[in-house]
Amino acid sequence: MGSSSVNDPYIMEEGGQQLDHVIGERSRMLLNAPDPPGLCSEFGSSIKEIVNLPNGNKSYSGKKKPEVKQHVGSLLRGLFPILSWGRIYTLSKFKSDLMSGLTLASLSIPQSIGYANLAKLDPQYGLYTNVVPPLIYALMGSSREIAIGPVAVVSLLLSSMVQKIIDPVEDPAGYKRFVFTVTLFAGTFQAAFGLLRLGFLIDFLSHSAIVGFMGGAAIVIGLQQLKGLLGFTHFTNNTDVISVVRAVWRSFHDPWSPLNFILGCSFLIFILFARFLGRRNKKLFWLPAIAPLVSVILSTLIVYLTRADKHGVRIVKHINKGLNPSSAKELQFTGPHVGEAAKTGLICAIIALTEAIAVGRSFAAIKGYHIDGNKEMVAIGFTNILGSLTSCYVATGSFSRTAVNFSAGCETAISNVVMALTVILALEFLTRLLYYTPTAILASIILSALPGLIDINGARNIYKIDKYDFLACFGTFLGVLFASVEIGLLIAVTISFSRIILNSIRPGINNLGQLPGTNNFCSTSQFPMAIKIPGVLILRVESSYLGFANANYIRERILRWVTEEQENEGSKENARTLQVLVLDMSNVLNIDTSGLHALEELHKELVSFDLQLVIASPTWKVMHKMKISKVVDIIGSGWTFLTVSEAVDACIGSKMVNSLP
Amino acid sequence: MGSSSVNDPYIMEEGGQQLDHVIGERSRMLLNAPDPPGLCSEFGSSIKEIVNLPNGNKSYSGKKKPEVKQHVGSLLRGLFPILSWGRIYTLSKFKSDLMSGLTLASLSIPQSIGYANLAKLDPQYGLYTNVVPPLIYALMGSSREIAIGPVAVVSLLLSSMVQKIIDPVEDPAGYKRFVFTVTLFAGTFQAAFGLLRLGFLIDFLSHSAIVGFMGGAAIVIGLQQLKGLLGFTHFTNNTDVISVVRAVWRSFHDPWSPLNFILGCSFLIFILFARFLGRRNKKLFWLPAIAPLVSVILSTLIVYLTRADKHGVRIVKHINKGLNPSSAKELQFTGPHVGEAAKTGLICAIIALTEAIAVGRSFAAIKGYHIDGNKEMVAIGFTNILGSLTSCYVATGSFSRTAVNFSAGCETAISNVVMALTVILALEFLTRLLYYTPTAILASIILSALPGLIDINGARNIYKIDKYDFLACFGTFLGVLFASVEIGLLIAVTISFSRIILNSIRPGINNLGQLPGTNNFCSTSQFPMAIKIPGVLILRVESSYLGFANANYIRERILRWVTEEQENEGSKENARTLQVLVLDMSNVLNIDTSGLHALEELHKELVSFDLQLVIASPTWKVMHKMKISKVVDIIGSGWTFLTVSEAVDACIGSKMVNSLP
Repeated sequence: MGSSSVNDPYIMEEGGQQLDHVIGERSRMLLNAPDPPGLCSEFGSSIKEIVNLPNGNKSYSGKKKPEVKQHVGSLLRGLFPILSWGRIYTLSKFKSDLMSGLTLASLSIPQSIGYANLAKLDPQYGLYTNVVPPLIYALMGSSREIAIGPVAVVSLLLSSMVQKIIDPVEDPAGYKRFVFTVTLFAGTFQAAFGLLRLGFLIDFLSHSAIVGFMGGAAIVIGLQQLKGLLGFTHFTNNTDVISVVRAVWRSFHDPWSPLNFILGCSFLIFILFARFLGRRNKKLFWLPAIAPLVSVILSTLIVYLTRADKHGVRIVKHINKGLNPSSAKELQFTGPHVGEAAKTGLICAIIALTEAIAVGRSFAAIKGYHIDGNKEMVAIGFTNILGSLTSCYVATGSFSRTAVNFSAGCETAISNVVMALTVILALEFLTRLLYYTPTAILASIILSALPGLIDINGARNIYKIDKYDFLACFGTFLGVLFASVEIGLLIAVTISFSRIILNSIRPGINNLGQLPGTNNFCSTSQFPMAIKIPGVLILRVESSYLGFANANYIRERILRWVTEEQENEGSKENARTLQVLVLDMSNVLNIDTSGLHALEELHKELVSFDLQLVIASPTWKVMHKMKISKVVDIIGSGWTFLTVSEAVDACIGSKMVNSLP
Repeated sequence: MGSSSVNDPYIMEEGGQQLDHVIGERSRMLLNAPDPPGLCSEFGSSIKEIVNLPNGNKSYSGKKKPEVKQHVGSLLRGLFPILSWGRIYTLSKFKSDLMSGLTLASLSIPQSIGYANLAKLDPQYGLYTNVVPPLIYALMGSSREIAIGPVAVVSLLLSSMVQKIIDPVEDPAGYKRFVFTVTLFAGTFQAAFGLLRLGFLIDFLSHSAIVGFMGGAAIVIGLQQLKGLLGFTHFTNNTDVISVVRAVWRSFHDPWSPLNFILGCSFLIFILFARFLGRRNKKLFWLPAIAPLVSVILSTLIVYLTRADKHGVRIVKHINKGLNPSSAKELQFTGPHVGEAAKTGLICAIIALTEAIAVGRSFAAIKGYHIDGNKEMVAIGFTNILGSLTSCYVATGSFSRTAVNFSAGCETAISNVVMALTVILALEFLTRLLYYTPTAILASIILSALPGLIDINGARNIYKIDKYDFLACFGTFLGVLFASVEIGLLIAVTISFSRIILNSIRPGINNLGQLPGTNNFCSTSQFPMAIKIPGVLILRVESSYLGFANANYIRERILRWVTEEQENEGSKENARTLQVLVLDMSNVLNIDTSGLHALEELHKELVSFDLQLVIASPTWKVMHKMKISKVVDIIGSGWTFLTVSEAVDACIGSKMVNSLP
């Protein structure tokens, strides 16, 4: 028995003919299944899906064809959600939005000056970025809570990547032009991702990678603030911890004024205390929101009255007055750095989108509505495209300000409009008053926003649930901290994808046994009570793909299992010899020519062991390819079964495995 | 009903309590399964496997611990298989090996001069490479048929990569030194792969990619031979088709002698005719094998007697006499090009191994023995390491010569030794006689070996079975043909791996139905006769991994399916409303934090549709992670079942889905 000449288990004695007949019919059902869709039709349907899927869940039933006018109307409403919710906007909502917009502005103004500083731009560019982007987003965006403007991580990313190409100190005008160009590229990429329905691209940064990245970036940003907080003149351009610590150490040997530190720290403590009070008492939610503005006003007054700037306290100095100037003429599409600008734009685009969509989705989930990633990408893309024409740098949704906006009770994106209008007023009338604002205060405002980026609980959870995910998280964290932001991102993507590849090239193989009292065959390691069938070895290939990268490995592992099993049985007295290997292929969703070849070879090798190979529950594509490549015929077409239990029944019925005592 | 408050189906009326009890018990079995091995223990076992697995199938049962002496003995026999088979070597075997070795030598001598020419080295280096490597391989290799020496593809690869770094015409000595260094690197990489059990690395070049690569390389090599066949002086260094055609076109305008072409073509026809005869009549197998040598002798005589070299026929001219000189001092480990040498060595190592192992395995399969890839890598690695010290360039197993060796009836690697000794004699005594050999003959000998590299039937088969595989094959072919050898390889690896990634990021989702008369639930597209259960939507995720790259996509697809199903049902009269979504997770072998989060979100969204999410047949790791992340509790721990049919039974039993007429 078990030799390849007995190729059909249905040629057998009377006994279990009824059963065999049923099983045989089902096996034929398997053999005669319709052909699965080919590569072309699959490709076509996935294109169709890309065009259709995310555009509202109800548009594809298509029972009534809408008129052209309706079409245009729905397209416009799709692009500008304000047309939908604007109609039902009420005065009471406006009151909420006004309050939250003003609260938001009081936080945004000092934060954005600080972020401009982090991005190595003049302070007014931070304020500009708080004007145009929120207005555009209010028209196009679908999130109701998100606060648009400059954010810490993108500012850091931008400065750390751009200053390698153009020095912001030596050539500030060129640096600025380059940043605007990067912003245009970032916006274009974002809009293109959205329009082409490539929203899934941002999924490639897994949740765990983002946790690691944000944590690393927060620490790096915090270290960058040491310059402002300690009032150093010379500092490093590198962002990694080692360079920064070395720079701090070196700077201590230069003359420096402890006044900066004292000022910065006292207000940092004040801001943190305000936040503590705000958390303890929900009614005081406005306290942490306005604490930064209060700090700015107080510290500016102190410096102005004591003229502390003459004693070494560093101040902001001149801020350009007036609204955003046009920057359309400053964009550069020629010259040696265009490729670099596009690359930097792409990375900024992805990071900005990741942050915006994560922020938008988490607050939308609280309020119970859904945000369409692709639409959001288009909105943020146009926000940045128009921003790049009006002296703004890359804007996106900010974690800290969105939380403030939410707790201030915003109802719609009108709070963003209120905030933008307030910033316009500040740009017109308040820039002079900010002349004496100490930079240490800006540093402490940024520092106070950082703890929100470090998600220790999230990291702990990831560690608990999935060690490999934690590896991605921690690797990204270390990469950002000790190498650079880009290397951190590269580590994130590499570790995440290498997991998919590793899973494919080193799949597991499980031994199955029958669950007592059922027809289910389960892994004997998952269910220790499962019973092995004497004379039959049942193995399941734990991979969705049997192909070039793992076919040889799987073949060798199976053979090894067979030899081990034979040795084990040989050592027992009265044991039934192994006669059948049932290969459960239910997890193998696809196979390629290498995989088919491996099956064929496995069959030959098993024949030399006097064993019959039986294929159980092959999936659609696998069955189809086994048919056209004639592997089914080589193994014997009677040896393919719909389920493991039918395969085992057929083997026992055909007296293959009960011929021994 | 379907709301999340009814979280346990076991709190229900009397009716089907018996069944429910059984199902409930099984679900608890699922919940109480032991923990799967963690990342560390998995890593540990895969290391153990790497060390253990391929070293013979019987060494790990370890019942008796062998003595140290035995250990050394088996280690030596493992490294030098000649110690095993040498003991039982007989005179009759030697007779076969002698005959096949001589036949092999008659083909090897002209071929290797031609390949040295292709590698842009002096002719003697081809002969040297036919001396040391076969001798080393005879000691260490485990294949009995393989013929070791220079081969066409590696010669082409070497020259096309090295001449970008050092020009072989301007600096022949530097070029030579670089080639030896590359050879050393290649050998070291090969030996390291074998010793570290990294044999799977060569699997990354899938069968289809190799078919495409070999076909493209054969055409490129053929085109390179036009220089010799037509007797051109100036030719291009590029290997792509367009450059070569342009160079040929340009050369036609220079003065050239048609005598080369006539001579080359007539002997090409002679060799091809000899092969044709050899194929028709198996007894004449020696005819195609010695035809090249006969051509060399005849054409050399013709040129010598007619002094045709004075009329434009290009000849080989001087070949250095004597055995391989040492090249140990010519190896370079300093200087600017070491990195390039290592890179070139790595690529050559992989291509050479791919060819050797493919050749070795296919002939071993004919004779019915198995070749261990890792051992073979060590053998070929040491072959090249020692080769690089004795003026050889990268050697490997040749397709064409191995076939000749096999059909000449070789028994063991002694035929390689006979061949090497014959080549030594040739180097000592025949180099002078080869002075007048026309280069056109060498070109036609190489040309005659090329058709064996183009596997049109293989490509057609690949096209029939798997369109995506064919894409890899054809892409590699075009890459080699129109760009360069390296780009072709890059395309091969990229296309092959992108398939694995694509499968993971865009998985299918199938609707399941009950197969009439059974408890099996199968895809309704694979089995059109499967019956849907009213009120229950059963979906199977066709991916082995539910994680960051596809979690959002899967969530959206499932939701879309639910809405479509609800719309369909809404349009029917008297239909039962959809109340349960059973998610068959049997194919999902692993999940990460993003996947768990997506399940949680899916549950929330389904609750808003008034639907209950039911998880059926979760795999071990998935179940474990759902437990520790509390997703099981969020969904409701009673809603996890061992199989789809139990899930459906429980839903019907709990009167969830039969409350309507």
